[in-house]
Amino acid sequence: VSALAPGSVIGILGGGQLGRMLALAAAELGFDAHILTPEADSPASRVAARTIRADYDDAAGLTAFAEAVDVVTTEFENVPAAAAEALIAAGARVAPNARALALAQDRVAEKELFADLGFVTAPFAAVDARADLDTALARIGAPAILKTRRLGYDGKGQARIGKAEDAPAAFAKLSAQPLILEGFCAFERELSIIAARGADGAFAAYDLCENEHAEGILRRTRAPARAPAAVQEKARAMAESLAHALDYVGVFAIEFFLMADGRLIANEMAPRVHNSGHWTADACVASQFEQHVRAVAGWPLASTARLCDAEMINLIGDEADSWRAHAADPNARVHLYGKRKARPGRKMGHVTRLKR
Amino acid sequence: VSALAPGSVIGILGGGQLGRMLALAAAELGFDAHILTPEADSPASRVAARTIRADYDDAAGLTAFAEAVDVVTTEFENVPAAAAEALIAAGARVAPNARALALAQDRVAEKELFADLGFVTAPFAAVDARADLDTALARIGAPAILKTRRLGYDGKGQARIGKAEDAPAAFAKLSAQPLILEGFCAFERELSIIAARGADGAFAAYDLCENEHAEGILRRTRAPARAPAAVQEKARAMAESLAHALDYVGVFAIEFFLMADGRLIANEMAPRVHNSGHWTADACVASQFEQHVRAVAGWPLASTARLCDAEMINLIGDEADSWRAHAADPNARVHLYGKRKARPGRKMGHVTRLKR
Repeated sequence: VSALAPGSVIGILGGGQLGRMLALAAAELGFDAHILTPEADSPASRVAARTIRADYDDAAGLTAFAEAVDVVTTEFENVPAAAAEALIAAGARVAPNARALALAQDRVAEKELFADLGFVTAPFAAVDARADLDTALARIGAPAILKTRRLGYDGKGQARIGKAEDAPAAFAKLSAQPLILEGFCAFERELSIIAARGADGAFAAYDLCENEHAEGILRRTRAPARAPAAVQEKARAMAESLAHALDYVGVFAIEFFLMADGRLIANEMAPRVHNSGHWTADACVASQFEQHVRAVAGWPLASTARLCDAEMINLIGDEADSWRAHAADPNARVHLYGKRKARPGRKMGHVTRLKR
Repeated sequence: VSALAPGSVIGILGGGQLGRMLALAAAELGFDAHILTPEADSPASRVAARTIRADYDDAAGLTAFAEAVDVVTTEFENVPAAAAEALIAAGARVAPNARALALAQDRVAEKELFADLGFVTAPFAAVDARADLDTALARIGAPAILKTRRLGYDGKGQARIGKAEDAPAAFAKLSAQPLILEGFCAFERELSIIAARGADGAFAAYDLCENEHAEGILRRTRAPARAPAAVQEKARAMAESLAHALDYVGVFAIEFFLMADGRLIANEMAPRVHNSGHWTADACVASQFEQHVRAVAGWPLASTARLCDAEMINLIGDEADSWRAHAADPNARVHLYGKRKARPGRKMGHVTRLKR
């Protein structure tokens, strides 16, 4: 794969904050960014050279997009398989590849690959019918979490099963779609690693970081994570083996649970830049956004070196009103996404506090 | 002046690389950027929410721009006085103010203010007619440099007078416009300081940096400058006194000559972000571009702290073809401006090498 020359066009599926930050990074390297999104006035469109406004299953829109850009990437993993196929059929170079996108859309396939690669995972079982749930619960035990196999994010599409009697209600809440039952991990800490693989097969990872979620939404990331060197090395090795197994090109994240006994449990992967990697834009030589653009453009990967410790706090819903206080803090780096309306649970921006 | 809320519109006069980098910085803070430029497909337009394509003396274009934006700033100092007046008449908040813009457009007025503030300058004299040049040369002596009072940049509009006999040719080359004769400074080093004043009157400066020019064009900036602490403090104090004297809001630069005897000679000021400040985007907590956006938006100034030493190299004309080599250097931060054609002398991008 040859490196795209400056002036080439990076096509981004999705008009949200991740697409926006990717478009900004692409511009710094001399690329034009084109956005495909069904949304009018999207955050990413306002920093992009061009937007094609179309649904992700609009064949004509996808074809026009494929013809206008030099590579297609995405800000979200739930790209319909038919969309990826249409883009490839129209001649587009798509990164990450369709297999990685498909994998991240199916929690069962994802955990099966993790197991194949020797990663420790929570016990899991596919649940396609009510009877499967009883079988799975009998094996895995409660507490457990019933999730949709597809299209879950930010804690959506999940039901907790505290004891066996909760099973009917949980199944009723989520049924009529393929599900997965996952054993509950009484973790000590949530960790994630942001890594990248270049078109040349090179691998690079940022320092392991540590996350706090509330109601399924990331609230805070601390980098580096408080974790022994052996855990950090293990996470890095797991990311490297996953990247090579998928012939992956671009940035991705793996989320882990760190157990009290030191075991590192692979929870899920995201085939894209990731909220828990936003700190890299302020505390590292090169951000995850630049890294992703470099990878999909066929450029050499950038340095992932960290210049200082950092803590990232998401600004969710009305929390974005705190911008004045953050703007006055000399160690706070303020990032706002240009979203017109602050709705509860909506990610409006983030702040990185540098620890110097 | 109240702080503009995220979602407000920062209007930028000019579509070049400085406008582009300002627009990118505005977006990170949640602002929309609008560009006014006569150029089609400008570098800044491709990262901005909207472009009004109009000449800088197009009253209708300026009025439409003033009505669409919440503050107007500029990427270049040669904004026609009539344009600034038209914007203000249409109700726009303009920063930096018209006085600062006018000052930077007149080398004589600029040096007179420098002298009023007690800055050491090269000896200078206004030259409006051929006879003035002889009088000025008799006082200042050769070598000296004859320059246009207005609209000079990157070494354009200048003629060197090595000895008195060169005067007629120099005058013939530049005549039919107001000129200035400046005594030649056999400087040891060229320095510059990038500083900012907020709408609240707060002042902040980045570390003094050191510049190399060739044929009047900046080639290389090293930060921090090799200069004694007393010189650094002096430069900072001069920048602060100039900022307050002009009731300045935004980022500006002062270029200096450092003489072998330690004297710091003020050469000129630029009422905008400056090429010799590009290193701040990679080596400091906040870039000069963010600092300027914060100032003109009425936000508190950002930290100017430097995280590491740096060297910035301009990529001029065909030098931009070296992007592959720079992209492979882990300590090089590559910035390309999206210009479609590399012409000799045209600034196509820059590279910042971090020294860690």
